[in-house]
Amino acid sequence: MSSSDIFIGETIGTALLTLLGGGVCAAVTLKSSKARNAGWLAITFGWGFAVLIAAYVSAPLSGAHLNPAVTVGLAVKTGDWGDTPVYFAGQLLGAMLGAVVMWVTYYGQFRAHLADPEHIRDAKLGPEDPHPHDVAGPVLGIFSTGPEIRNVVQNLATEIIGTAVLILAILTQGLQDGGKGLGVIGVLITSFVVVGIGLSLGGPTGYAINPVRDLGPRIVHALLPLPNKGGSDWGYSWIPVVGPLIGAVLAGGLYNIAFA
Amino acid sequence: MSSSDIFIGETIGTALLTLLGGGVCAAVTLKSSKARNAGWLAITFGWGFAVLIAAYVSAPLSGAHLNPAVTVGLAVKTGDWGDTPVYFAGQLLGAMLGAVVMWVTYYGQFRAHLADPEHIRDAKLGPEDPHPHDVAGPVLGIFSTGPEIRNVVQNLATEIIGTAVLILAILTQGLQDGGKGLGVIGVLITSFVVVGIGLSLGGPTGYAINPVRDLGPRIVHALLPLPNKGGSDWGYSWIPVVGPLIGAVLAGGLYNIAFA
Amino acid sequence: MSSSDIFIGETIGTALLTLLGGGVCAAVTLKSSKARNAGWLAITFGWGFAVLIAAYVSAPLSGAHLNPAVTVGLAVKTGDWGDTPVYFAGQLLGAMLGAVVMWVTYYGQFRAHLADPEHIRDAKLGPEDPHPHDVAGPVLGIFSTGPEIRNVVQNLATEIIGTAVLILAILTQGLQDGGKGLGVIGVLITSFVVVGIGLSLGGPTGYAINPVRDLGPRIVHALLPLPNKGGSDWGYSWIPVVGPLIGAVLAGGLYNIAFA
Amino acid sequence: MSSSDIFIGETIGTALLTLLGGGVCAAVTLKSSKARNAGWLAITFGWGFAVLIAAYVSAPLSGAHLNPAVTVGLAVKTGDWGDTPVYFAGQLLGAMLGAVVMWVTYYGQFRAHLADPEHIRDAKLGPEDPHPHDVAGPVLGIFSTGPEIRNVVQNLATEIIGTAVLILAILTQGLQDGGKGLGVIGVLITSFVVVGIGLSLGGPTGYAINPVRDLGPRIVHALLPLPNKGGSDWGYSWIPVVGPLIGAVLAGGLYNIAFA
Repeated sequence: MSSSDIFIGETIGTALLTLLGGGVCAAVTLKSSKARNAGWLAITFGWGFAVLIAAYVSAPLSGAHLNPAVTVGLAVKTGDWGDTPVYFAGQLLGAMLGAVVMWVTYYGQFRAHLADPEHIRDAKLGPEDPHPHDVAGPVLGIFSTGPEIRNVVQNLATEIIGTAVLILAILTQGLQDGGKGLGVIGVLITSFVVVGIGLSLGGPTGYAINPVRDLGPRIVHALLPLPNKGGSDWGYSWIPVVGPLIGAVLAGGLYNIAFA
Repeated sequence: MSSSDIFIGETIGTALLTLLGGGVCAAVTLKSSKARNAGWLAITFGWGFAVLIAAYVSAPLSGAHLNPAVTVGLAVKTGDWGDTPVYFAGQLLGAMLGAVVMWVTYYGQFRAHLADPEHIRDAKLGPEDPHPHDVAGPVLGIFSTGPEIRNVVQNLATEIIGTAVLILAILTQGLQDGGKGLGVIGVLITSFVVVGIGLSLGGPTGYAINPVRDLGPRIVHALLPLPNKGGSDWGYSWIPVVGPLIGAVLAGGLYNIAFA
Repeated sequence: MSSSDIFIGETIGTALLTLLGGGVCAAVTLKSSKARNAGWLAITFGWGFAVLIAAYVSAPLSGAHLNPAVTVGLAVKTGDWGDTPVYFAGQLLGAMLGAVVMWVTYYGQFRAHLADPEHIRDAKLGPEDPHPHDVAGPVLGIFSTGPEIRNVVQNLATEIIGTAVLILAILTQGLQDGGKGLGVIGVLITSFVVVGIGLSLGGPTGYAINPVRDLGPRIVHALLPLPNKGGSDWGYSWIPVVGPLIGAVLAGGLYNIAFA
Repeated sequence: MSSSDIFIGETIGTALLTLLGGGVCAAVTLKSSKARNAGWLAITFGWGFAVLIAAYVSAPLSGAHLNPAVTVGLAVKTGDWGDTPVYFAGQLLGAMLGAVVMWVTYYGQFRAHLADPEHIRDAKLGPEDPHPHDVAGPVLGIFSTGPEIRNVVQNLATEIIGTAVLILAILTQGLQDGGKGLGVIGVLITSFVVVGIGLSLGGPTGYAINPVRDLGPRIVHALLPLPNKGGSDWGYSWIPVVGPLIGAVLAGGLYNIAFA
C-alpha cells in the first residue's frame, strides 16, 4: 500500500467511524431525534456497525486500522513502525472531519437541544460543580467519552483492558482459517467484537478504546460555535489517548509471547 | 441479465423491501399490533432485514439494486447508464406493490388505529397546524419518511450524507476479497450497513436513502381509501427523492477519485 | 438421505425449534422469569436463533426443513413429493416433543404464573368474553399463535404473506453463490430472515408461518395438566395450518414462473 | 496441539469469557454504570459476544473449548479423554482470572453500589430470609448464576437441557459444509447459539451451561474484599457444575446414536 492510499483510506474510514459513532450518540441523546432514548443497545450496535461500515470501505485502501491503538498493536507484532505516522495523521484528520459532518447531519437537533431551558440550566452550573463533566455532559458525550466516576487509576485501567481485548482479537485474526487476513468475515466479526466490548466493558468510561475517536471529536467540540455547549473536559482527555495506547502495547506483547 | 429479468427482479425485490420495511413501521406504530412500541432498534433491524430478504431473493435476477440511488451510483462508477430506465421502472412499481401488500397484512390494525378517537382528534387539526406532517403523522410515517424538524437545507443534507455512506459501502464491495462481487456475505453485510445508517443517521429525517422507498408508498398512501388518514405531505416529498440521488452521485464521484 | 435420517433429523430439529421458540415466549411472559417483559425484539431474535440452532443441528441429517411449508415449497419447486409424509411425521412429533421439554424447563414458572390471582381472574372470564383468545392468552400464547384482531380473511392473508416471503427466500437460496445449497451461511441468513419476518409481519397474528410450530404445541397445551390454563382456541387453529400451506404453494409457483 | 498451548489458550480464552460475561452483568446491574438497566437483550448479546471474542482469540491455540461441558461432550464423541485435565485446569484458572479483571474494570461501580443504603438494607436481611440468594443477589449475580425459583429438580433439568442444546450444536458443527471444523463462521454461529439459549432457556436459572463460568467467579466472589457483599450461595453452587456435565454426556450420547 502506498502512503497516499494509506492516508486517504484512513481519513475516509475514520471519518465514517466518527460520523456514524457520533451519529448514534446524537440520535439517542438530542431533542427532536426519532431515536431519542433508544438506549444502550442502540449505542453499542450503532458503534459496532460504524466500525463495520468504516472498515469495510477503507480496507482495500489502507487495511482499515482507523485507530492508533490498532496501528501500534500491529507494529508491536510485526516490528515494522514505518507507516505509523501516515496512519496517525489520516486517523486524526478523519476523526475530526467525521465529527463535523455528524454535526451537519444533526444541525437542527443540536440547536433545539442546546436552546432547551433544562439544558441551559444544567450548563450554567459551571465548573464549580463537583462533577464538571456532567454539566452539559450529554452534548460533549456525543463527541467524546467521559467517566461515570472520576478515578484516574480505574478509568485508565478500564480503557487499557477494553483496548487490550480489542487488539488481541485483531492480532489473532491473522491466525484464523489458515491466515487469510482481514476478509469481509473478519470485518463483520470485528464489528461484533466492538459491540461486545461496549456491552461488557463500556459501563464505566464509555469505551473510547481508540485515541483519535476521542481526541478528534473533542477538538471539534471545542471549535464549533455551539451555544451553551459547556467545556470540553480537557482534564480527562489524556486518559482515552494514553489508556488505549498502553492496552495496545500490552496486547501486542501478550500476542508475541503466547501466540507467535 | 436480460431486461425482463431485471424488471421482474427489481419489482419483486423492491416489493419485498417496502412490504417488510413498511411492515415494521406498521408493527411498531399501529393499535392492536403485538409489536406496538417495540422501539427504534426494532425499526432499524426490521429495515435492515427487509434489505437482507429483498436483496437475497432478487440478486440472482437483477443484482438487487432495489434503489435508484444504487443504480445511479453504479452507473457513475461504470459509466454504463443503459439499463437505468428498466431498473427505475421495476423499482417504482415494486415499491408501490409492496406498500399495498403491507396494507393488506395490517388491514385490521389500520382500521382500529384510524378509528381511534385520539388519532381522529389529531388528524382533524388539519393543514393549518404549524407542522402538518405531524397531523396523522404516525400513519403517513408507516408509508413514507418525514423530518422531525423541517429545514430544507438540513433535511436534504441528512439524506445526501446517509445515502452517500450507503452507496460508498456498496461500491467498495466489489473490491473486497479479490472482487468476488455481491455474494451472500455481501448481502448480509449490506443489511447491517443499513441498520447502522438507520441507528446513526436516521434521527433527523427517518432515513429514506432511497427515492422509490419513499415515493412509491407515498403514492399508495394518497390513493388508499383510509379514513382520517390526513395529507400525504407532498411538500416534503421531493427531498427523499433528490437527496439520495445527489448522495449517490457524490459517492460515485468519490469512489472514482479515491478507489478506482 | 434415508427415510430414517430424515425422520430423526426432522424430529430433533423441530423439537429444538419449539423448545427454543416456545422457550423465549415463556421467558418473556411468565412470572419469576429473569427475562420477563424483555419485549418484542427478544421474541423475534429468540425465534430467529431457534431456527438457527434447529437448522444447524438437523441440516446434516434431513436438510433442515422443520416446517411443512418448507417441505411443500420445495416439492412444488422440484416436483418430487416422495419424502413428504416422512418429513411431516417427524415435524409434528418433534414440535410436540419440544413443547413438552419447554414446559419442563419452565415448570416452576408455569406453576407460579398460573397460581397468580390476576391470571386466575382473567382465565375465569371464560369463552363468553368477546375475545376468548385473550382469556389466559399469555399462557396459550407460549405454545401457539393467536390474532390480535379476529378476522378470518385478514388472519389468513397475513399468514399466507409471511410464509410466502419465507419460502421465497428459502427457494432462491439455491441460486446464491453458484448454487452451493444450504451451507452454514445460508442457515445464518435464514435465521435473520425469520427475525425480519417476525419484526415486519408478526404484529397481527404472531407469525406462525409453520403449521406444526403452531399445531404441535397446541396439542400439548390441550393435554398438559396445567391448572387455570384456559381453552386451546381450536376455533383459530386451522388458520396457522392452512395459511402457511397456501403461502408455500404460492411462493413455489412464483419461483417456478420468475426464477426457474 | 501441545499441552502448554492448550493450557495457555484455555486460560486466556476463559478469562476473556468471564471478564466480558461478568462485565455485561456488572454493566447492567451496578450503580453509576452507563449501561444500567439495559435489559435482558443486552445481557444475552453481551454473553454471546463474550463467547465470540473468547473463542475467536483462543481457537488457534486450544480449539476454544472454554467450558468443561464442551470438553466432556467432545470426549464422549471422540472417545479421547487424554487432554481433559489440562483443559479443565486452564478453564478454571481462566474463569477466576477473568472475574478478577472484571472487578478491576468496575472497581468504582462496585464501591458505589455496595455503599448504597438500599443495597445494604437488603444485604442485612441475611440467610434467615426465605430466598437467601436474593439477599445481595444483584452483586453475586454479576459473578455467578442463581435460580428465580429454588427447585433442585427443575433447576438441574434447566441446566441439563440448556447445555445439551449447546453441546449438540457444537458437536454437529463438524458435519457442516463438508466437515471443515471450527472456522470463523462456526465461531460466529456458536456465539448466536449462545444468545439464543440465553433468550429461550435462561429465564429460570440464568443459564450457566458451563461449570467453570459459574464456579470460578463464585470462588472469586467469596475471596474478594467486597463490603456488604452477602454470601456466595454455596448451597446452589453444585447445580451449575453437575447439570452442565450431565447435559454434555447426554448430548454426546445422542450425537453418537443419531449423527455418527
